[in-house]
Amino acid sequence: MEKIAVWGFSWIPPFAQGLVRDLRVRWALEEAGLAYDSRWIGTGELKSAAYRSKHPFGLVPVLESDDQTLIESGAIVHAIAERCETLMPVDRRNETLSWMFTALNTIEPPIWNLFAMDVLHRDEAWVPLRRPGAVDDVKTRLAALSGCLDGRDYLLGCFTAADILMTSVLRFIRHTNLVGEYPLLDAYVKRCEARPAFQAALRNQMEGYALNEPATA
Amino acid sequence: MEKIAVWGFSWIPPFAQGLVRDLRVRWALEEAGLAYDSRWIGTGELKSAAYRSKHPFGLVPVLESDDQTLIESGAIVHAIAERCETLMPVDRRNETLSWMFTALNTIEPPIWNLFAMDVLHRDEAWVPLRRPGAVDDVKTRLAALSGCLDGRDYLLGCFTAADILMTSVLRFIRHTNLVGEYPLLDAYVKRCEARPAFQAALRNQMEGYALNEPATA
Repeated sequence: MEKIAVWGFSWIPPFAQGLVRDLRVRWALEEAGLAYDSRWIGTGELKSAAYRSKHPFGLVPVLESDDQTLIESGAIVHAIAERCETLMPVDRRNETLSWMFTALNTIEPPIWNLFAMDVLHRDEAWVPLRRPGAVDDVKTRLAALSGCLDGRDYLLGCFTAADILMTSVLRFIRHTNLVGEYPLLDAYVKRCEARPAFQAALRNQMEGYALNEPATA
Repeated sequence: MEKIAVWGFSWIPPFAQGLVRDLRVRWALEEAGLAYDSRWIGTGELKSAAYRSKHPFGLVPVLESDDQTLIESGAIVHAIAERCETLMPVDRRNETLSWMFTALNTIEPPIWNLFAMDVLHRDEAWVPLRRPGAVDDVKTRLAALSGCLDGRDYLLGCFTAADILMTSVLRFIRHTNLVGEYPLLDAYVKRCEARPAFQAALRNQMEGYALNEPATA
């Protein structure tokens, strides 16, 4: 049987738990019914030569399988989706990919910037000056996205790999009520998060953190 | 014969000319030897219902062909690459996609943020406070990317769709000397930009701007 392993962080502080991008990969594997092992890397070891040989940018996730090592959550989820008709219907591949890239390139950048501002850079002097504009950027995207979900449960109508990426992206602003301002979007995220495959993926990621929690945390 | 049309801006100020994302699509089409027409949309018309019916987020590019309307430069370049063995070698599809996502999700976000800071928000009070950190973020990525190009002319060794996206991304900081600080990267961008297909794509984009230049510009 094929061996698949997913690399994620061994531990991170609670504010980032459930947000790291190996969650997307775990979720896709769970949806596809593919068994996998977890591998943990400490955030302090990302720059080590050993880990850089797997991921040249020193990031997670990495997927290792019998015949390849893959980086980039978008590419990994795509490779899994190609093996699972549900995640990428064969006659709607271009449409699925369009929504996957929309999630990662049109929706994630402004959302990530707001997350970084509020969480990673929160005490820096530039944040209060920039934040109102950054919120506007997010709202512009959320309003358009909400319009796309009018009359449909998922981005393509049926659940696909694009919903895995989009939901993961929208979770980055779970510390705000911005998604909650758009009832269609709010219901969409809850609908996706209620899937057993998402719950299993989240459980697997959180179990890793519990296992590796430092004594001082 | 199949009709293909690419939507780009009818005109934009010189600081953004040669940077808009329809250039990536034009370049891929030129590499693949696929003929296409240009369609122009004014930046003031992006929010019109007519254009929103093509692109729900009111952005460019859009690719229209006989049987589909596609959005997202990454997805469009991928769809073109699937029709062109050079752009995505059939036995290296996952690797090509990994590098395509690397370009758009690992390299573009910090580079775009620096472009936005220097060009779109340049007179705002937060910019001087944030800029040094943003430059550091860019340099971290450029250094790792440069390491990946040691001993190879292109990201996969041979030229692929990933190089179209990566080069387009690196061009966003042409107003700085950051790429120039990494001789391997600098040579890589010049090598990609020297390709006849890139030159033809750029010429087509610039011809549109010349055609549509407002009298007051």
